[in-house]
Amino acid sequence: MDAATYAKYPPTLTPQQEQHLTATVKAWAIQHGLAVKPAASFVPKETDPNGSLATNAPITLFPSLFPRACYDTARAVQKAYNELYAGITNDEKWLGRIIEELAPVDDFIANLWKIHQTIKNGEGYVQDLSVGLFRSDYIAHRPSDSDEPALKQVEFNTIASSFGGLSSLVTAMHTSLIAHPSGAYPPNEILSKKRPPENFAIKTLARGLAAAHSAYGMPKSNEQLPTCILFIVQDGERNIYDQLALASQLKEVHHIPVFNVTTTEIMNVTSIPISTATSRPLIYTPPWSPDTPFEVTTVYLRGFYGPGDYPSQSAWDARLHLERSSAIKCPSVLGQLAGCKKVQQYLADPAGDDHLTKFLFGKVPQDTIDLVRSTFAPQYDLSVSGRGRELALDASTAENHVLKPQREGGGNNIYRSAIPAFLKSIPEKDWQSYILMELIQPPEGARNVLLRSDGEAADTPVIGELGVYGTILWKKDGTVLHNEEGGYLYRTKSRDSDEGGVAAGFSALDSILLL
Amino acid sequence: MDAATYAKYPPTLTPQQEQHLTATVKAWAIQHGLAVKPAASFVPKETDPNGSLATNAPITLFPSLFPRACYDTARAVQKAYNELYAGITNDEKWLGRIIEELAPVDDFIANLWKIHQTIKNGEGYVQDLSVGLFRSDYIAHRPSDSDEPALKQVEFNTIASSFGGLSSLVTAMHTSLIAHPSGAYPPNEILSKKRPPENFAIKTLARGLAAAHSAYGMPKSNEQLPTCILFIVQDGERNIYDQLALASQLKEVHHIPVFNVTTTEIMNVTSIPISTATSRPLIYTPPWSPDTPFEVTTVYLRGFYGPGDYPSQSAWDARLHLERSSAIKCPSVLGQLAGCKKVQQYLADPAGDDHLTKFLFGKVPQDTIDLVRSTFAPQYDLSVSGRGRELALDASTAENHVLKPQREGGGNNIYRSAIPAFLKSIPEKDWQSYILMELIQPPEGARNVLLRSDGEAADTPVIGELGVYGTILWKKDGTVLHNEEGGYLYRTKSRDSDEGGVAAGFSALDSILLL
Repeated sequence: MDAATYAKYPPTLTPQQEQHLTATVKAWAIQHGLAVKPAASFVPKETDPNGSLATNAPITLFPSLFPRACYDTARAVQKAYNELYAGITNDEKWLGRIIEELAPVDDFIANLWKIHQTIKNGEGYVQDLSVGLFRSDYIAHRPSDSDEPALKQVEFNTIASSFGGLSSLVTAMHTSLIAHPSGAYPPNEILSKKRPPENFAIKTLARGLAAAHSAYGMPKSNEQLPTCILFIVQDGERNIYDQLALASQLKEVHHIPVFNVTTTEIMNVTSIPISTATSRPLIYTPPWSPDTPFEVTTVYLRGFYGPGDYPSQSAWDARLHLERSSAIKCPSVLGQLAGCKKVQQYLADPAGDDHLTKFLFGKVPQDTIDLVRSTFAPQYDLSVSGRGRELALDASTAENHVLKPQREGGGNNIYRSAIPAFLKSIPEKDWQSYILMELIQPPEGARNVLLRSDGEAADTPVIGELGVYGTILWKKDGTVLHNEEGGYLYRTKSRDSDEGGVAAGFSALDSILLL
Repeated sequence: MDAATYAKYPPTLTPQQEQHLTATVKAWAIQHGLAVKPAASFVPKETDPNGSLATNAPITLFPSLFPRACYDTARAVQKAYNELYAGITNDEKWLGRIIEELAPVDDFIANLWKIHQTIKNGEGYVQDLSVGLFRSDYIAHRPSDSDEPALKQVEFNTIASSFGGLSSLVTAMHTSLIAHPSGAYPPNEILSKKRPPENFAIKTLARGLAAAHSAYGMPKSNEQLPTCILFIVQDGERNIYDQLALASQLKEVHHIPVFNVTTTEIMNVTSIPISTATSRPLIYTPPWSPDTPFEVTTVYLRGFYGPGDYPSQSAWDARLHLERSSAIKCPSVLGQLAGCKKVQQYLADPAGDDHLTKFLFGKVPQDTIDLVRSTFAPQYDLSVSGRGRELALDASTAENHVLKPQREGGGNNIYRSAIPAFLKSIPEKDWQSYILMELIQPPEGARNVLLRSDGEAADTPVIGELGVYGTILWKKDGTVLHNEEGGYLYRTKSRDSDEGGVAAGFSALDSILLL
């Protein structure tokens, strides 16, 4: 994909074409549940007190181009990545060393770690199965127009990996628009030949949870209750149709009862009977049907992933309550901690130990380990002297790096030449709160039309991020019961040149055409 | 269905149950496109200038009970009704006599008739095929609790028979809620045993239009253009997802290009080339793709059905333009006129001639003719002395009648004991503007919970109306090329006791359980 390709794709739209395509896309979105709840800035609460309104999710009018080799690599490494993060979650000693380094500077990490410690050093865990619904996010890295693009990992999500539902729908929408007998798109050479790869995200994610549900086995409650999966969700969630697509798949295809519980109501609607101290089943009592309790096999977290989900101690109490139960957690506290940025930095530090081999040797072929390693963008620890500090403080080497705060969900990134001066402006002891990462540079010249949820469309230069979904179900002893890869998310953001070319404005769901 | 049945169904909801069921229904609706655009009274235009928002269609939380015998009858007579209305449309002399009676008191009817006259007495028609997408609406008539319910026709729709798309979705929703592994409904004996009959409305309607599209044959344009179907729609239509379901079925299953054209843009985007005066193909030029015109095989009217669609002469010009073209009309002007209330009254007048036999004898079996006749509620002409005037002026017989204005879409009905005094209050020459109809009395005791589009729910006594869809494609010479029955609409309205028990408040889409 060079400038010549981007000059031909996507086709430029006349105002009439844009109006027609936008209307077609908006109608398709609502017809198929490719929707979100409108933000309060769009529809004031008093206009819609019952929360009945929906609007299209932010989406692109066209699928984006993506290098086939990068897509193939992302798929080829996903099951190894699943193994890697299952392995890290299981290796409390390895993970603990990193977490104990982080805990002093990050309360959120410290509180999660405390939950694990409380259970481990107290009554102990009663569930040795864990399930991961993962998404590994990448950019096709292409520092200059003459380089072949290379797949580089941006982050690995071990909790609340979202958009599987809406992403499957966007792929279906772009595919349908291309095949549209009424000609939704203007004639275009690439669109006449290509279709997005089929997107199995929702099937893959549902199969992962269904595998956990089934592996849970017989109910542990004295009454042999019927079993269910609980989705733990945020109050006021706007992305409910994405979650609903997964819940529907579980109900309709796997015939598993699924219930939503908000983070704030957990303690009111679930319990662990005292009489079951050694097995600790999690009992869910639907408020609208108090006489038909369920035993929860699997707790799927779509909330509790960031500091904002814990406004008070009672939220931490609820998380501990879930964690000590016998429900299979997606993810466990350790599984969530395995996803923190510092772990990624440890794995990707060229100056560090070969952790990858430690975790994957003997489990996946050597060339797959090498392929996983090829997806790392070099990342460095700044807590000690060494290569990281050298690169960060030298203006010329800082130029292709970004400085990221270690804290989860915290603060803004510092880019390129601003790095040396920034570091010098803060006390050296605080440097350990940052990770230095080589900049991943998406191809120049990509363009798309982004349609916001309020109906405004913008034809703009963009950067895109590919996420690949994977699920794994494993035992504390290392046995893997289920390991799958399948489905993708492509998110396209308007390119904001002020932030070094990688940060971005608003983000839209997209699909891909492979070139 | 007696009082005892209604006492058990639908189950009464606790506030928690109602909240849960409402949330489930609202989410399902948006996830599946069971949606409408919000009214301006709900979301002001300035809040959503791009028209991005959608909300659930008004729907019932439960399917309603309906007598199986009535449902079977409604299905059994539909193809005969299709034949009947095709026959009436073809019999210009029979229909013309009624229309010429109406025209002096109804400008709208007069203008439609004028279009037919203009073409017939001028250049002549160039298309001898017509297609009907019909819906026959009924109430299960049950004057007292001791009577067996009998199916009685409320009206027969020959134009813009809507809700096939949303109705299919409501049936799917109720079916899914009943089978829901998470228990959307409280336990209930009827719900544990029954499922709504499958709803083929959208498949039936699409097959009707596809049959017309295919019967159109080779393009008549000199350039042998690709062919398409045009949906003629209203500006500012809120019910777009219903129409979209039909368009999608035509595109995805029948691979037919379908375009929407509003009544006001017809003259800008369609033309009949002068060089084709003898064949008059209707050419559609998409504004966003002026170089790829289509020839229109079939014009499907979802606008132009009522006086409000003709604010000025240019709308009548556009209707004439469509009518004189070689596109197959769904419906033609005569087809629309065949659906007027006066035709129904002629057919159902016990004191009148046996028109039914005239149209159906030899085409359908005698017992089907009798079955069709059994669905008529007696209706009377008031233009002359006779049985109708006797019944209307006597307070005791007026008691089970309703007085309806003849005008299409005009005025309010007069009920029961108010009829004699009302007639006496207006000049006798105006009596001919009314039809007297025996009241159809829905069963007492039915209840449902109606969910409005703004999210308000109301548990209320209801009355329901069953519509059965049918499609027919026929030639001017009487040959029938396609005649199908399939799919239903059930609309439930809150019962408003002020209006004699048959008029109603707001209406919600529903499905049925057969008892």
